[in-house]
Amino acid sequence: MALLKNVGEHQLVKNIKNIIRPSGILGVDDDAAIVETNDIVVCSDIVTFERHMPETMTYEEFGWTAAAVNFSDLAAMGAEPIGLITSLALPPDLNESCLYDIVRGIDKCAKVCNAFIIGGDTKPGTGIISCTALGRMGNHRPMMRSGAKIGDIVAVTGSLGSPAAGFYAIKNKIKVAKDTVISLMAPTPHIKEGMALAKSGKVTSCIDLSDGLATAASIVCEQSHVGMEIIWEFLPEGCDVDVVSQQSGISKENMMLKWGGEYELMFTISKSDIEALQDCDVHFSVIGYVTGGENISILKDGSVLERYRAGQYWC
Amino acid sequence: MALLKNVGEHQLVKNIKNIIRPSGILGVDDDAAIVETNDIVVCSDIVTFERHMPETMTYEEFGWTAAAVNFSDLAAMGAEPIGLITSLALPPDLNESCLYDIVRGIDKCAKVCNAFIIGGDTKPGTGIISCTALGRMGNHRPMMRSGAKIGDIVAVTGSLGSPAAGFYAIKNKIKVAKDTVISLMAPTPHIKEGMALAKSGKVTSCIDLSDGLATAASIVCEQSHVGMEIIWEFLPEGCDVDVVSQQSGISKENMMLKWGGEYELMFTISKSDIEALQDCDVHFSVIGYVTGGENISILKDGSVLERYRAGQYWC
Repeated sequence: MALLKNVGEHQLVKNIKNIIRPSGILGVDDDAAIVETNDIVVCSDIVTFERHMPETMTYEEFGWTAAAVNFSDLAAMGAEPIGLITSLALPPDLNESCLYDIVRGIDKCAKVCNAFIIGGDTKPGTGIISCTALGRMGNHRPMMRSGAKIGDIVAVTGSLGSPAAGFYAIKNKIKVAKDTVISLMAPTPHIKEGMALAKSGKVTSCIDLSDGLATAASIVCEQSHVGMEIIWEFLPEGCDVDVVSQQSGISKENMMLKWGGEYELMFTISKSDIEALQDCDVHFSVIGYVTGGENISILKDGSVLERYRAGQYWC
Repeated sequence: MALLKNVGEHQLVKNIKNIIRPSGILGVDDDAAIVETNDIVVCSDIVTFERHMPETMTYEEFGWTAAAVNFSDLAAMGAEPIGLITSLALPPDLNESCLYDIVRGIDKCAKVCNAFIIGGDTKPGTGIISCTALGRMGNHRPMMRSGAKIGDIVAVTGSLGSPAAGFYAIKNKIKVAKDTVISLMAPTPHIKEGMALAKSGKVTSCIDLSDGLATAASIVCEQSHVGMEIIWEFLPEGCDVDVVSQQSGISKENMMLKWGGEYELMFTISKSDIEALQDCDVHFSVIGYVTGGENISILKDGSVLERYRAGQYWC
């Protein structure tokens, strides 16, 4: 295969269309696609070779990641994915096959999220993928970041810290479970969980943990004008976090609170509504509660491990 | 103001929100925005410092261009713009103020197109803006590239070659009208014209000329499985094309057929339907007709100036 600089952009787009699953959506041969829907949820996130592609990550995994960060934002709203628009700015000296691997990764992640690539563009660049995901709410109210209420319970789906454990395991050549590496390289957006939480109608706020729990709590508190107390002992520890922390010297606090790259959802809900989630088929852990004042406190052994103002970010 | 690398991304996003017009759309403080609509038209285009920012272009004009290329794709469909998602990958050593100038330019173009910035992302990069424009068709059928029929008339809105004339005028220090430079630096997408053409219900295909007339004809012919004869003498010559061609030595053919950066619309329509466009308030010139066979011929003085297969591209 040729280098990208030796292939015309129109030709690349044609080749890409032969790789991805056809969406059946009108307009993909035009510069625009047309989707019939009653409402649209739209979000956009950039990933770059420089920041989001660890040395051992394949191009297909990088493509998967580019799609996953966007579908995860839909998941946090509780939206049902429709499609993805993918803009690729890749180095002219990259081999064509790398582009197709990236697109294959994007398409695979879209498939898992029950969506299609419905458009995009490709230009020379330094290895930047900007995706825009489209979804729909149907009859459900979107879960926002601004609805947390004093007294609400704070909960997270799944467990925390595995992507960080995977990263430091590779860096320090520590042997870990395959799933730990997958949680870093090809994380699955929690679409099903997000849709189930939204369908309950009871969740007051929701956010994904792509920037880490500490930053996620900070954003929700800032936008909801509340505070939070998070109990360290309640945090569900991800696979291999303990062993990697011991062997790498990276603290568990760093991996589980500040590292990011998590695709779990953090949400708030009134204590009296928690029963509504029992039939949801969503596995979650209660990790704290919403307080007044715009401070977040992480409590460990009954004392304050960390305390910071809403609006402070680590990622 | 600081360099971008010294300002956190969350802070940049906050500052951007203070610059742009508020859309009133739910979710812009979340990572996703929610739009109520019956259908959505979506398109995405990348512009880069390297390729789309001539030396004398300001950051605000570059931002305008990034938005304009996308709204122009909506115009070609005949869609009514709703909003724009803007992903910016800018050099860490760029001054913060340049980012805000870019965003101001995007927002100004969005305003002219009756739309809002409704989301986006910012990351370090080499100067790449990827926008995704959202629009709606309402009750009108979208104009596609695949509907041209043998015997149809081929027409273009406005005039051709002014952006190229502006470019070569600046390069060669040739004095030209202010409008010629504006057509290069801050071109206006033809939203009103596109919507009027779609509303007529009679247009069989439509495309914008961002890649130039020769490539546009090639794309429509390829997707409609037809050919075209374009009459050189019928092409509406843009302001300053003649003088710049004489003084720079760049041929008019190059500027009016292959240079691109045009925001005019090329469309096809049955001869018998052309009256339907009389009340449209769209200024257009008939430039040729649709033939069988997938070849495009440009005829000048009754002989073939150029002849090429559908599917051949210059941009």
